[in-house]
Amino acid sequence: MIRASFFFSNMAAGALQLAVALLSLFSAVLSFPLGPETKHTTTCGYESCHATKPNMLNVHLVPHTHDDVGWLKTVDQYFYGDRNDIQHAGVQYILDSVVDQLLKNPDRRFIYVETAFFYRWWKRQSSSAQQTVKQLVNEGRLEFVNGGWCMSDEATTHYSAVIDQMTIGLRFLNETFGACGRPRVAWHIDPFGHAREHASMFAQMGYDGFFFGRLDYQDRMHRMVQKEQELLWRASDSLTPPTADLFTGILPNGYNPPEGFCWDQSCDDPPIRDDPDLEDYNVDDVVMRFLTIANSQATVYKTNHIIMTMGSDFQYENANLWYKNLDKLIHYVNAQQANGSKVNVLYSTPSCYLQELHRANLTWALKTDDFFPYADSAHDFWTGYFTSRPALKRYERISNSNLQTCNQLEVLGGPASRQGPFGEGESQTMKKAMAVAQHHDAVSGTEKQHVANDYARRLANGWQRCQVLVSNSLAALSGSSAKRIYCDNLNISVCPLTESSKKFSVSVYNPLARPVTRPVRLPVNGTAYAVSDANGKAVDCQVSTREVRRNRGFAVNELVFQVQAPPLGYSTYSVSLRQAGPRPASAQPGAPTVIQNKFLRVTFDPDTGLLSSLSNLETKQSIKLTQNFYWYNASDGNNLESNQPSGAYIFRPNSSTPFVISRTAKTETIQVQFPHMVQEVRQWFAPWVSQVVRLHGDSRALELEWTVGPLPIDDGLGKEVITRLDTSIKTSEIFYTDSNGREVLQRKKDFRPTWNLMQSEPIAGNYYPINSRAFIKDDVDQLTVVTDRSQGGGSIHNGSLEIMLHRRLLYDDVRGVAEPLNETSNIFPEGLVVRGRLLLSLDPPSVAADAHRPLAQEVVMQPLLTFTNGDLSPNTRLEFSGLQAALPPAVHLLTLTQWDKDSVLLRLEHQFQSWESKVNSQPVTVNLQKLFSTLDVLGMSELNLSANQWKDEMMRFKEKPLLKTFQDPSTWEVTLRPMEIRTFLLRVSLR
Amino acid sequence: MIRASFFFSNMAAGALQLAVALLSLFSAVLSFPLGPETKHTTTCGYESCHATKPNMLNVHLVPHTHDDVGWLKTVDQYFYGDRNDIQHAGVQYILDSVVDQLLKNPDRRFIYVETAFFYRWWKRQSSSAQQTVKQLVNEGRLEFVNGGWCMSDEATTHYSAVIDQMTIGLRFLNETFGACGRPRVAWHIDPFGHAREHASMFAQMGYDGFFFGRLDYQDRMHRMVQKEQELLWRASDSLTPPTADLFTGILPNGYNPPEGFCWDQSCDDPPIRDDPDLEDYNVDDVVMRFLTIANSQATVYKTNHIIMTMGSDFQYENANLWYKNLDKLIHYVNAQQANGSKVNVLYSTPSCYLQELHRANLTWALKTDDFFPYADSAHDFWTGYFTSRPALKRYERISNSNLQTCNQLEVLGGPASRQGPFGEGESQTMKKAMAVAQHHDAVSGTEKQHVANDYARRLANGWQRCQVLVSNSLAALSGSSAKRIYCDNLNISVCPLTESSKKFSVSVYNPLARPVTRPVRLPVNGTAYAVSDANGKAVDCQVSTREVRRNRGFAVNELVFQVQAPPLGYSTYSVSLRQAGPRPASAQPGAPTVIQNKFLRVTFDPDTGLLSSLSNLETKQSIKLTQNFYWYNASDGNNLESNQPSGAYIFRPNSSTPFVISRTAKTETIQVQFPHMVQEVRQWFAPWVSQVVRLHGDSRALELEWTVGPLPIDDGLGKEVITRLDTSIKTSEIFYTDSNGREVLQRKKDFRPTWNLMQSEPIAGNYYPINSRAFIKDDVDQLTVVTDRSQGGGSIHNGSLEIMLHRRLLYDDVRGVAEPLNETSNIFPEGLVVRGRLLLSLDPPSVAADAHRPLAQEVVMQPLLTFTNGDLSPNTRLEFSGLQAALPPAVHLLTLTQWDKDSVLLRLEHQFQSWESKVNSQPVTVNLQKLFSTLDVLGMSELNLSANQWKDEMMRFKEKPLLKTFQDPSTWEVTLRPMEIRTFLLRVSLR
Repeated sequence: MIRASFFFSNMAAGALQLAVALLSLFSAVLSFPLGPETKHTTTCGYESCHATKPNMLNVHLVPHTHDDVGWLKTVDQYFYGDRNDIQHAGVQYILDSVVDQLLKNPDRRFIYVETAFFYRWWKRQSSSAQQTVKQLVNEGRLEFVNGGWCMSDEATTHYSAVIDQMTIGLRFLNETFGACGRPRVAWHIDPFGHAREHASMFAQMGYDGFFFGRLDYQDRMHRMVQKEQELLWRASDSLTPPTADLFTGILPNGYNPPEGFCWDQSCDDPPIRDDPDLEDYNVDDVVMRFLTIANSQATVYKTNHIIMTMGSDFQYENANLWYKNLDKLIHYVNAQQANGSKVNVLYSTPSCYLQELHRANLTWALKTDDFFPYADSAHDFWTGYFTSRPALKRYERISNSNLQTCNQLEVLGGPASRQGPFGEGESQTMKKAMAVAQHHDAVSGTEKQHVANDYARRLANGWQRCQVLVSNSLAALSGSSAKRIYCDNLNISVCPLTESSKKFSVSVYNPLARPVTRPVRLPVNGTAYAVSDANGKAVDCQVSTREVRRNRGFAVNELVFQVQAPPLGYSTYSVSLRQAGPRPASAQPGAPTVIQNKFLRVTFDPDTGLLSSLSNLETKQSIKLTQNFYWYNASDGNNLESNQPSGAYIFRPNSSTPFVISRTAKTETIQVQFPHMVQEVRQWFAPWVSQVVRLHGDSRALELEWTVGPLPIDDGLGKEVITRLDTSIKTSEIFYTDSNGREVLQRKKDFRPTWNLMQSEPIAGNYYPINSRAFIKDDVDQLTVVTDRSQGGGSIHNGSLEIMLHRRLLYDDVRGVAEPLNETSNIFPEGLVVRGRLLLSLDPPSVAADAHRPLAQEVVMQPLLTFTNGDLSPNTRLEFSGLQAALPPAVHLLTLTQWDKDSVLLRLEHQFQSWESKVNSQPVTVNLQKLFSTLDVLGMSELNLSANQWKDEMMRFKEKPLLKTFQDPSTWEVTLRPMEIRTFLLRVSLR
Repeated sequence: MIRASFFFSNMAAGALQLAVALLSLFSAVLSFPLGPETKHTTTCGYESCHATKPNMLNVHLVPHTHDDVGWLKTVDQYFYGDRNDIQHAGVQYILDSVVDQLLKNPDRRFIYVETAFFYRWWKRQSSSAQQTVKQLVNEGRLEFVNGGWCMSDEATTHYSAVIDQMTIGLRFLNETFGACGRPRVAWHIDPFGHAREHASMFAQMGYDGFFFGRLDYQDRMHRMVQKEQELLWRASDSLTPPTADLFTGILPNGYNPPEGFCWDQSCDDPPIRDDPDLEDYNVDDVVMRFLTIANSQATVYKTNHIIMTMGSDFQYENANLWYKNLDKLIHYVNAQQANGSKVNVLYSTPSCYLQELHRANLTWALKTDDFFPYADSAHDFWTGYFTSRPALKRYERISNSNLQTCNQLEVLGGPASRQGPFGEGESQTMKKAMAVAQHHDAVSGTEKQHVANDYARRLANGWQRCQVLVSNSLAALSGSSAKRIYCDNLNISVCPLTESSKKFSVSVYNPLARPVTRPVRLPVNGTAYAVSDANGKAVDCQVSTREVRRNRGFAVNELVFQVQAPPLGYSTYSVSLRQAGPRPASAQPGAPTVIQNKFLRVTFDPDTGLLSSLSNLETKQSIKLTQNFYWYNASDGNNLESNQPSGAYIFRPNSSTPFVISRTAKTETIQVQFPHMVQEVRQWFAPWVSQVVRLHGDSRALELEWTVGPLPIDDGLGKEVITRLDTSIKTSEIFYTDSNGREVLQRKKDFRPTWNLMQSEPIAGNYYPINSRAFIKDDVDQLTVVTDRSQGGGSIHNGSLEIMLHRRLLYDDVRGVAEPLNETSNIFPEGLVVRGRLLLSLDPPSVAADAHRPLAQEVVMQPLLTFTNGDLSPNTRLEFSGLQAALPPAVHLLTLTQWDKDSVLLRLEHQFQSWESKVNSQPVTVNLQKLFSTLDVLGMSELNLSANQWKDEMMRFKEKPLLKTFQDPSTWEVTLRPMEIRTFLLRVSLR
């Protein structure tokens, strides 16, 4: 194993002040500090740590609570302590109690993690209570760690939403507490496996270290033996070290206290009974047990410091129980030093523990891969949740797209977007709803049904508020206050306006920094329409009969036409019903042998109706490609090897051979008028599995729109449905998946890069999260699949790639959620139908990223359609772009959002890895002053990734001021290197 | 129904100072105050109550916790919060938390009840924490109610032990907090039925009122309709009103909060969610539900004040949950007054509520009977616990006797008793063990087995400490430091010393204030002994073969001789093995037709071997008397009418007809040498039921020594064993039982004095607690049975009296204890054998009390035997009496115990009811200065019954200073009227 020295410096990052002095380097300096000024000298951060004893084993007791931002209860139920019949948990009381108890003894420490909860609590406190808490924070007695709005899931989240949720959490802390409120440590004690991209982001957010609790049981055993539970994670293959290097510690006991030492009200461990007058004086026993555990733990770590997490889920609601006993424990254990004991126990925090590791000046093992998949036992692979609740996973992804649009239009529309003709609009509700949805029991799909409903409702509420903002903004930009109508159900082909209107317009807003072209598909009841673009030019359009068996609503036909939208802007198309026209295209039984456009050719097997090959006409490459749908029979736990069933978390098929849903597909083809626009083959596999194979005229990707569900369960069998692509590509058991939508990692069957795997689950143990894409390749061909949501997948056979689409399970997998993942409700008593898209591209490996990078961004940030009924007023501006010009292909405009009255937050991203494109994996420069078409940029400062530190001041343990090496040639021109994200605060004014 | 006005005065008893001014009335005044001086003006008690609104319905919210002094866990486990796996409860944390929360808002109130817990907590607090608590008490924010060491059981406790336990609890409060710590209200919210004697004692302890929660469900319904849930209880038929009058309130909901308003951590009711930004704002709903409940409750009470108990078992461990929501409730409910609501809600205490009832100046219903038996449903009579754990009940009663001896000898022996030749002795451990044993899940027998074991162990530990004291004291009094040996197992005929020694002496200490004569029965292995009394005079003695089948140990013979012991003193007998003598008397098969002494004649039925008649030879009265043993088949809950099984609390026979254990008894008779000393017939009913019928030479009572157990359960049937006396007495379905060992109440079959009973359990619904005696009578004959412990019993048939002796049950009765009352253990895997005595006397009703009153006291305060091996040194004082003379027959010396260095507490009791004896039911006067033989009485002050107030100052709501009417003719002469107990603090010095 490669080892690297993790260079810590002697510079204590603790008391860094958010001064503005260094900002004078910039030509136009923002004059406001990020946080409030600190009135007194403070001793928070590393300076506030308790002294340790160099010649002893120092045991760092870390009092903490782990407060899920929704799981068995909704986030607000958790906050209030409502529905304690489901789970006893009330965060308002935890914070009340911890603050009280911290005040009782200045030695005590507490860390708090989830800002979503802390924020709710804070705003209900009196100002004197707030002052008290500030004092505790300033003295390092209450320390924030992690500090995002939630503790995000790592397998199923997209980096865009993760950065956003971290930003709003850390911003709140910064604005409330200043430097002392800034977390030094990332803390993901509960997520079910760990993504490399998360570590990279944490490094770029300025965290000095990262601690987590869950990893593969074999990995842990190996690391215990090797004393490699503490390591240096090099989390990017593209960013120059140490930019994405992160010290990473694996906690000794998940995030729980050692056995026998849980003194929460939820535990039954014996309290310390130290009154000799009462029964069962047990101090000697407690001390002896503690010393045994401490000494034993020390044997699997490298230094004379060890950490113990004294807390767990929703603990410290009555913090007195914990602290009263911890006070006694510390007193009695340290009293043994007089008798020669070499164990020193102290209240501590993860950052204080980290500081001691830093001082130890050791060399740590280097890790460059990730911590997926996670198994806590031989047959317990947590790879089911990669796909669990696919509808929620998609809704979260669409919501992110809508939020980015909302954010952009808030900036572009100016103050009128927040207060305009449609009332008060705002993006905060949506931001918080999205932030909550990143939680590791939210988008992960591992929450109870009613909680999943709550997450969705929050997103819907947020979007409602954003719609007002979007309408106001578009009114300001277009000059028309005509009512905007949103058709959020176009995925099931429902839009009352288009179904009934004889004349309407549709505006297509594109949140990407380059133009997009895409088909628009609208349910209609007319048979012929005229469509014209923003210049009044007629646009080809196609009416075909609507597929009604797998859709909802009352439309009989579907209108399709191609639209183009400018960067960060919209284009408006008018649609009118025509009296006469050609008969709508209808579906005819049978599939063609071949469909093709100028880029791709797709063939079907006439006997089975399945895909049979895919060819790239430009590169003249061709592969055999068969695609079909299968289901794994979910284990019900009734099994000799293990009684683990498949559930919300766990994927455990009863057999490694999935059942094919149908060997043949019944097919239909739409006989369209404009085959250059779209060609469409419908495949029927079962009443509950169908697919539309679409080839758009100017697309380099083949679209497979799958519709799966409700999964039948009358046979009493839980089902996990996959689609499998079997190709002629020679993959050597290797495939590739992305990490949180960014960098791609190589995966090899039955193999882990850092230890000798004993594989016990041939399918589930080879599944990985696919966040936005996966590919298989050989020297010649790369087949890339871009997904529209997070899914699990694997490559079990040579040349094969399978993706799990939907799951319906009849047993709980005993990880706490206590519900089978059945997804029935009043609205869907039959179970859930889920629809999604896979986009396939075939390219030579050396240029594949040039296609899949922009393609995936188009899926992540998709155009938003708004509709207006009737005629638009003549002065309406039908087209608009917020950018002066499209950004270069390598640059993705990740964030544009209002920060405060006069400033906006901008993130620009180089979206290519260093090795994946000759053309695009190059540094690229953007001039910020020339970016916007309607905004003047008056000032600019660069921030760290999470926007809670000036970048100059972000100085982790022993980084040389490396950022200077990226100094821009001029103030306004910023250069982006592969996979780099740069974050700027811009002072702007609307022109 | 009779009604009486309950006269409240305007005198606020709240801030009474324990000044010493009035003490100058006495010739020799004690100069120390009872409690600490109060430094500041305080506003505790009634003065600290929140204002109410006269034109509104005032809802008094009373935050409280009910902390069982042992039940499912031991008292110390409850204190620490140990064994939370059994029940989540930790009193240390409750008090920590409540104090913290009271400090947060001066409006908040809390009451605390059980001093056993408060004391444990207090002594672990820092002095600054103690000062804080004192301040809360002085401001009436923390108020003590009840305040005894525990909340005693009312059915199975003896008044002697109840007074003691109240005294040590209230003394602690008084010494710690002074007047503000004195409870104004008695609070028995949980005991399972309420004894009239308890109410009488509470009145005499100076309580202004009494609240409880449990009463018969029919009684409650009737009282709700009649608005008689608040009443005046006249609790004595002998004491002059209002001495034993007590205002009594029945709480509306047991002691729980109204449904939906439990905000403890142990409850799941929805918290008040008043942040409109979060989900499920519910303030309107909460307020509406509360108003509905309050208005509904007001319809069944008389005034515009109602009380709500906001708490329950071991609640307030995290008081923040309760108070945070109560603060909100009060705020939002009272805010509705602006909209015309006429409900005013406030933090309150039982005394503040009581004050408002007092101010209402109403007339209340008068009650003169008691609240037994308690049924919470038609088939759920809580009459099983009257007998549950008969061995523990007896051990508690012996322990009380031993403690009184220990207390007396601590006084009589002086300081040398605490520090003497046998080391340090003390009585505090035993006092506290006895106090704990009075708890309503202790001597009641309704605790888990391991907790019952703990109570017994505490008593044993206490007795160990007392034995040192007793040995020291007897050494000082006798002048001999020879080792004293205690034979605590004489009840099972085990005493290693007497079994092996050839020469030993036995000292008989008599704690009664008059001489006693009684047989001593010792296991021996010799066949002939010589016994001499303190004067060296030979004493007749009898050796007989020991019954080994139902006893333990290794003795083959039993030595019996009669001893006499002086009042509050001892007499010492010497025993020597003789080389030769008559052959030991042995048991011969068969019973005589008749046995008799000079007082009684007893006949046996020659066919059955059972008793057949009893005659009083002095009064020449005779009754038919058959006695036999039966068992009720305990319901297993599998029953059409109800699924209630018999259990630790509930008595529910499966049939009203008990099974006879045997229609005939196999009998044996001991052919004794001295029939004038003792005659003995042994009866065998089954291997598990036997009895010895004994007639002692100079006794007016027939002794029935029963031995029952282990009850067989191999037939799968729970058994409740009774003995039944069937007589020729014409009882008209009436019988009599005592209340806590004092006044006797009349019981009538299927009848309750205050409502029209619908009887649903013909046996269990006619059971009552028998604490020390029961009798049946007609105009001519009264058969009185004195018991040696509390038992349940009834008179189901005319002329019949049945007493339940032992129970063994296979099902839990779902009242929380969650164990069947099976009483198996490692030591007794077969189940428990229990032995006890019934003493029968037959007299004309008019003089029966002259016999049973002293007889019962001899059982309650029995002589203590101590043994010394070998010869005593010649200077040993062999006889001693602490009194100058025996007290008159009507006077019982209830208490003589060291109070502090120079003073002792004395209680004298008139032990006759006003109506029960021509001779003895007369006032009687005692001169305190002439009481003791070895103590000079230097000063004297009279106290209330619980010794926490000077009697002069004990002024309950509107008592005229009635005590003056009992002014003694001279300072030292005190007159006792029937059933009066007078309590004195004496300053004494040893002569």
